Amino acid sequence: MTELGVVHRSIKRADRALVDKLTSLGVATVHEAMGRIGLMKPYLRPIYPGAQVSGAAVTVLLHPGDNLMMHVAAEQIEPGDVVVAGVTSECDDGFFGDLLATSFKARGARALVIDAGVRDVKALTEMGFPVWSTCVSAKGTVKPTLGSVNIPVVCAGALVNPGDAIVADDDGIVVVPAALVEKAVTAATAREANESDKRAKLAAGVLGLDMYKMREPLEKAGLKYID
Amino acid sequence: MTELGVVHRSIKRADRALVDKLTSLGVATVHEAMGRIGLMKPYLRPIYPGAQVSGAAVTVLLHPGDNLMMHVAAEQIEPGDVVVAGVTSECDDGFFGDLLATSFKARGARALVIDAGVRDVKALTEMGFPVWSTCVSAKGTVKPTLGSVNIPVVCAGALVNPGDAIVADDDGIVVVPAALVEKAVTAATAREANESDKRAKLAAGVLGLDMYKMREPLEKAGLKYID
Amino acid sequence: MTELGVVHRSIKRADRALVDKLTSLGVATVHEAMGRIGLMKPYLRPIYPGAQVSGAAVTVLLHPGDNLMMHVAAEQIEPGDVVVAGVTSECDDGFFGDLLATSFKARGARALVIDAGVRDVKALTEMGFPVWSTCVSAKGTVKPTLGSVNIPVVCAGALVNPGDAIVADDDGIVVVPAALVEKAVTAATAREANESDKRAKLAAGVLGLDMYKMREPLEKAGLKYID
Amino acid sequence: MTELGVVHRSIKRADRALVDKLTSLGVATVHEAMGRIGLMKPYLRPIYPGAQVSGAAVTVLLHPGDNLMMHVAAEQIEPGDVVVAGVTSECDDGFFGDLLATSFKARGARALVIDAGVRDVKALTEMGFPVWSTCVSAKGTVKPTLGSVNIPVVCAGALVNPGDAIVADDDGIVVVPAALVEKAVTAATAREANESDKRAKLAAGVLGLDMYKMREPLEKAGLKYID
Amino acid sequence: MTELGVVHRSIKRADRALVDKLTSLGVATVHEAMGRIGLMKPYLRPIYPGAQVSGAAVTVLLHPGDNLMMHVAAEQIEPGDVVVAGVTSECDDGFFGDLLATSFKARGARALVIDAGVRDVKALTEMGFPVWSTCVSAKGTVKPTLGSVNIPVVCAGALVNPGDAIVADDDGIVVVPAALVEKAVTAATAREANESDKRAKLAAGVLGLDMYKMREPLEKAGLKYID
Amino acid sequence: MTELGVVHRSIKRADRALVDKLTSLGVATVHEAMGRIGLMKPYLRPIYPGAQVSGAAVTVLLHPGDNLMMHVAAEQIEPGDVVVAGVTSECDDGFFGDLLATSFKARGARALVIDAGVRDVKALTEMGFPVWSTCVSAKGTVKPTLGSVNIPVVCAGALVNPGDAIVADDDGIVVVPAALVEKAVTAATAREANESDKRAKLAAGVLGLDMYKMREPLEKAGLKYID
Repeated sequence: MTELGVVHRSIKRADRALVDKLTSLGVATVHEAMGRIGLMKPYLRPIYPGAQVSGAAVTVLLHPGDNLMMHVAAEQIEPGDVVVAGVTSECDDGFFGDLLATSFKARGARALVIDAGVRDVKALTEMGFPVWSTCVSAKGTVKPTLGSVNIPVVCAGALVNPGDAIVADDDGIVVVPAALVEKAVTAATAREANESDKRAKLAAGVLGLDMYKMREPLEKAGLKYID
Repeated sequence: MTELGVVHRSIKRADRALVDKLTSLGVATVHEAMGRIGLMKPYLRPIYPGAQVSGAAVTVLLHPGDNLMMHVAAEQIEPGDVVVAGVTSECDDGFFGDLLATSFKARGARALVIDAGVRDVKALTEMGFPVWSTCVSAKGTVKPTLGSVNIPVVCAGALVNPGDAIVADDDGIVVVPAALVEKAVTAATAREANESDKRAKLAAGVLGLDMYKMREPLEKAGLKYID
Repeated sequence: MTELGVVHRSIKRADRALVDKLTSLGVATVHEAMGRIGLMKPYLRPIYPGAQVSGAAVTVLLHPGDNLMMHVAAEQIEPGDVVVAGVTSECDDGFFGDLLATSFKARGARALVIDAGVRDVKALTEMGFPVWSTCVSAKGTVKPTLGSVNIPVVCAGALVNPGDAIVADDDGIVVVPAALVEKAVTAATAREANESDKRAKLAAGVLGLDMYKMREPLEKAGLKYID
Repeated sequence: MTELGVVHRSIKRADRALVDKLTSLGVATVHEAMGRIGLMKPYLRPIYPGAQVSGAAVTVLLHPGDNLMMHVAAEQIEPGDVVVAGVTSECDDGFFGDLLATSFKARGARALVIDAGVRDVKALTEMGFPVWSTCVSAKGTVKPTLGSVNIPVVCAGALVNPGDAIVADDDGIVVVPAALVEKAVTAATAREANESDKRAKLAAGVLGLDMYKMREPLEKAGLKYID
Repeated sequence: MTELGVVHRSIKRADRALVDKLTSLGVATVHEAMGRIGLMKPYLRPIYPGAQVSGAAVTVLLHPGDNLMMHVAAEQIEPGDVVVAGVTSECDDGFFGDLLATSFKARGARALVIDAGVRDVKALTEMGFPVWSTCVSAKGTVKPTLGSVNIPVVCAGALVNPGDAIVADDDGIVVVPAALVEKAVTAATAREANESDKRAKLAAGVLGLDMYKMREPLEKAGLKYID
Repeated sequence: MTELGVVHRSIKRADRALVDKLTSLGVATVHEAMGRIGLMKPYLRPIYPGAQVSGAAVTVLLHPGDNLMMHVAAEQIEPGDVVVAGVTSECDDGFFGDLLATSFKARGARALVIDAGVRDVKALTEMGFPVWSTCVSAKGTVKPTLGSVNIPVVCAGALVNPGDAIVADDDGIVVVPAALVEKAVTAATAREANESDKRAKLAAGVLGLDMYKMREPLEKAGLKYID
């Protein structure tokens, strides 16, 4: 239930060691292993290519044109966290820049995922602090309205509970509920191993039609080849 | 936690009598009374103007191009419900048309809110079954993939738990958690009474500047009048 | 093959009597009967609700900001035609207004479908000339660049050959290749008859789950009911 | 030059009698008569069809999520004005509802044109107060940040100076600089007279190709007719 | 005519040697040389900058959320082909990732152009397999519905016949009908030679106004210079 | 007041030395220092990352599909200028490519900011001529319609007067009225100095909550911490 004006200080974070294993597995594989749920909408894009992170979610609920709660959130960050920010209505302001990034980084945050805009992207790129955002906008924010920290938020169409595992790379962002991280690691690792095999076969020229034994079902479904 | 392939048959619906009181209070007032949270994004629009409904949410999670779970959801509808459908990725197909509407209506559903497209809008308008959707599309859906019914879903940026109160009108759609409906009715009713007073004053020519006693704070904030 | 600067005067139009039968069958049913292909993208919307038309396509290829070829197309219109206009790049000008509508109507055109903007919508509504367009814009067009008339055009993602049947209503616009109109009428009519039956059952409270015999396959697919 | 925190009380409004003549001439004709400049972008849409207004602009500059200056603007409204609101960054909140509309109407305003969202659209429709907006959103606004009233603002891509004539109808909104209103009336009236003639001819079946003498230039440009 | 459930195995590909000449000429020059037709809409973007390819089109028609036909298409690829995929309705899933890319590359494909999303973009970038797509999305696809291979498809607003030449680079994608490739090479080569001349002059400070002899026509058109 | 068909040759440019100081201060800082006004909308994006420019504005008003006035504008460029182009209606054609860039560069232009599309982006990147645009499109333009040069234009929602200072980088584009450049330099420089201090503190682990003394006002506003 969304509450305004509260900060939850005690959140149960997903197991750090397990979360870290999700990084290199990657968003596409983890998402697939989870049964294709928990993905944020693809309108969120990284400010520079190549970043790959995972972490436990510290969540923030912001108001349009107002980044007050980002400062409140900073104090709740622990090393290895990823901050996830939702906004109560669409607003393309730049809610986050190099000063906040310096603070977040000093606290140990690995990244920001925000359903709004970001600025100072050149500086953020140089300092290696990745952000996934809806847009880049130089327009800062000022007004002091209370939102909340560490409540459930919706970000880019996905529900994020504080402490959930967040995995983000060039393909997007996936949320893994804290209780499912172990299962996700196992399933995604198995999936990846399986994919290495397939990749080798496909590289050698084997067709997916044969490798996946699709020819018979396709024929049954009525596929016609015309010469 | 999002689960695929499940149907929860026993959900705790918000109190019907209280939910019904929300209808005429309207989305804008209820949303304001809730502290301005729980609103779906304004890209959802009603298929015809003037509809005003409220009800308890039966939720559905769909896959793109696949409306299988709508049929499963129909059985879970009780009179006075509003069906709320999320989709695992953006898809503008028409997932719902006059046949499903006939079935939903026969079951007692008051409306559909769907984060995707709808079709047969002329027939739906004639039968008085309102739908709030992302678009209108004649393109039907077919493929049978399991989603879920009555799990928490995200619809147009808002989190909806099964049984939550849904209020929808020309201004949009607001979600009121089942546990907060009584509080929402009280707060919104108070707000509305208060607004009638204000409306009368404003209609008589009183300025908001005076009614809300804004002149002094504006002057303090530095507002300058130039003749 | 797209040619610029040509007007094809002799086009083979879909059979008028058959095309007329498509009108009341409606876009959703015809599209479904065709195997769910040939639909224009849902970003095209009618300027007023309730219009239902069908006709043979006279096609036009326009350039941005330039409606020269609309005047050339007018001469090629025969009673019962629907004009379909594509543009070589996206442009939201109002390419068509009440003067052109007067001319098109005098020639016997039933509607315009345009992958661009339209203006004078109040007058068009009053004269009952329906238009499906990307937007409404008062901005007229002027510059004289040659496009073409009655060549294959792409409009809102659909390929339209001159003479194809066009069906348009509140649900959108579907293109039926001239050679398939008879088949479309037959299939859509059968489909509609079948839908009347289903509609009656659903209205009587029969569930789609039973009517479509979905319970067994759903169970096999692993659907779990939780009380 | 954009200034924040100021209210200009003495603005030079376009001549009322002349402005009133623009109403029935309509946006498309006035825009055409002005040389096709001054049009707001077509993403602004009226909340109900059929409204036709003109008036002198009272301008407002707002911040995202903050409608404070609307109340300040109300005092500057004189009978026959149209309020035009720009926002410093994109925000889809509902900045204006039935209370403000009651106040604006009591002051004599004819309409609102806003580069943001509006709410209470059912009430606004019933009271006959037209609004052109980017969207409809029930989400209200609260925070008290100073913007300005009666400074030049950009609204939906058009520059509006306080006192400029605003003409709005189903086709959109056009801005006529106060100094050009007389010229606009003359040119648009002439244009309209001329259009009546053309309309009659076209209705009688005369082709634009002949009426505008386009055949020779088209031939020279290389248009080929193929039978 | 769009058919579902068919694979055309014998297509007439544009002449390979000629197609290869189009690569370095580039999309803008080829498009210009073709008379400015055949361009896909600019919403398709490359997953990494700098790729320049051309090839003969193998076409695929997909359904939303379903990449079955990609596997069927793989078998039809010959060295030097570019796969072009249309979808029957808008869907932002990631229909293509590194496994399919491995297979396509092993078959000799040079690139994919898809009117939908793509995933595994880091891996695709590392393996140097360029994709032009509507978005990047980690969301995979699964369901087995028959589409078609090597039928005419509409992709991003352009009609593509199997065998047509496709040219793609940072500026977008242009389709050259197989029968026009020779003409396109000739016209684009001439155009490019001509541009080198112009570039040198412009670099030396000659104005386009003089080089293109625009001063007199501009004066005739009424251009006024004001000091 | 927008005039068509005129070129103002004598414009008062912002002081060059001062304008140059804005470059390294950056868009976000300058915009903040100006009171958060004058920013173009974030839909304009640079064609390559890392460019940082400032200059005096030469403005151009174009028509859709027509880049005639770009050639006229070239003659008005002086070393250190930035060309800013508005369009009378939305159009995603590529109005500018390597030939014009060669000419603009030879005249001393530092960049182009255009509320429309651009092409030849690979060549522009290689020659180091930065462009901020709405999109990349290979589609060229041709038709000769008079627009204007050096009149006030609206570009991406911002009003630009000829001679205004333009600052552009990865964060976007801000317009500083010529008369305010000195003030902007002073304010932005002060702001930047102040930010260095803050950055050091935040990097050392000081929280914004303490540095900005936010704890007390937050408590007063009612923020609750929950353990």
